[in-house]
Amino acid sequence: MIDLYTAATPNGWKASIVLEELGLDYEVHRLDLMGGEQKQPAYLAINPNGRIPAIVDRDNEGFAVFESGAILVYLAEKAGALYGEDANERSEILQWLMFQMGGVGPMMGQANVFFRYAPEKIPYAIERYQKESRRLLEVLDRRLQGRDYLVGDYSIADIANWSWAHTYEWSGITIDGLDALSAWIERVRERPAVRRGREVPARVKKEDIAKAGSKLVE
Amino acid sequence: MIDLYTAATPNGWKASIVLEELGLDYEVHRLDLMGGEQKQPAYLAINPNGRIPAIVDRDNEGFAVFESGAILVYLAEKAGALYGEDANERSEILQWLMFQMGGVGPMMGQANVFFRYAPEKIPYAIERYQKESRRLLEVLDRRLQGRDYLVGDYSIADIANWSWAHTYEWSGITIDGLDALSAWIERVRERPAVRRGREVPARVKKEDIAKAGSKLVE
Repeated sequence: MIDLYTAATPNGWKASIVLEELGLDYEVHRLDLMGGEQKQPAYLAINPNGRIPAIVDRDNEGFAVFESGAILVYLAEKAGALYGEDANERSEILQWLMFQMGGVGPMMGQANVFFRYAPEKIPYAIERYQKESRRLLEVLDRRLQGRDYLVGDYSIADIANWSWAHTYEWSGITIDGLDALSAWIERVRERPAVRRGREVPARVKKEDIAKAGSKLVE
Repeated sequence: MIDLYTAATPNGWKASIVLEELGLDYEVHRLDLMGGEQKQPAYLAINPNGRIPAIVDRDNEGFAVFESGAILVYLAEKAGALYGEDANERSEILQWLMFQMGGVGPMMGQANVFFRYAPEKIPYAIERYQKESRRLLEVLDRRLQGRDYLVGDYSIADIANWSWAHTYEWSGITIDGLDALSAWIERVRERPAVRRGREVPARVKKEDIAKAGSKLVE
């Protein structure tokens, strides 16, 4: 049984999607990010960075894993799936996972901040991050030309990049002309496990949220 | 023999430091970033993202690896060193490596852009990224209290985080009060392999640069 601490964000969806894909049992603990639940000492013991997602593996002596990229690798290795067939293929998957962790995620995240949330509209910053996000999506598009998935079969590299890429409208950018990317976004979206994982934690009941919340500050 | 395509940046130093630590033979190809050498077709075949660093492993049928985080893992696994003793320790190292890839690197990078390079001084953006970079360095400081290295013995997690953290002055932030971080920065800096790796590619001769450059556009 895996405890998943999460919220409805691209990084959170990576974890819930991979858990659904691998068919692992997990219990959702939704964190109230606006209320600062992720900065409580009990949660910092699980994730010292105070961010979501994080997991605790009850079957591995309560081993905790933070950073969505490390969660994908941990769970794929645990289940022996979604992470390639040999050392070179695993490296390629890790390369595209790192591309998302260091590029697509941070840049689309900053685009969201300046396009949607910042108290002042700063054209230089909005343009900088939207342009870089679009450039990164173009890199994915070129990679996907003639391929169904980023590396061989569907893998954690697809889960990581899809979780961010499919939210391009939220960042105020288009994928016009990126036909391979667009087809891949729909291809991944249609997977039943992706549909289920994409709804986590929205489907959690209010009483479960209250319960998980109280656990975190006990 | 490893071909290393790099420039004098924190992400580049990660690759040259790990090559020095592991004692692997490598040949440096310095890219002229200002001249756009990293966007040439010959280089995009090695790194589709058009960034440095990238490596090509001549002993693995010319296998190419891009993304500094994936290079650290590839080389550590190849040499069987700097990547922990068992699965849990490897996961912990990967967690702190991902923390650098998704946090410390992108945020210090953005702090540099707005503090140093942007044509206009935008106080909101400068403060945002300096504050977040300082917060991330505080997370490292707390982790290092009572420890010599981030996870067990010195590992690729230290190399990744050190390559960025030690450049804090360039981002316009201080590490005042972060005594554990400060001691760790010096502890890592004193390693002979780190000193050598930190000088790459500055020590490359001009004629070697010209040679590497011409290779890239051939």
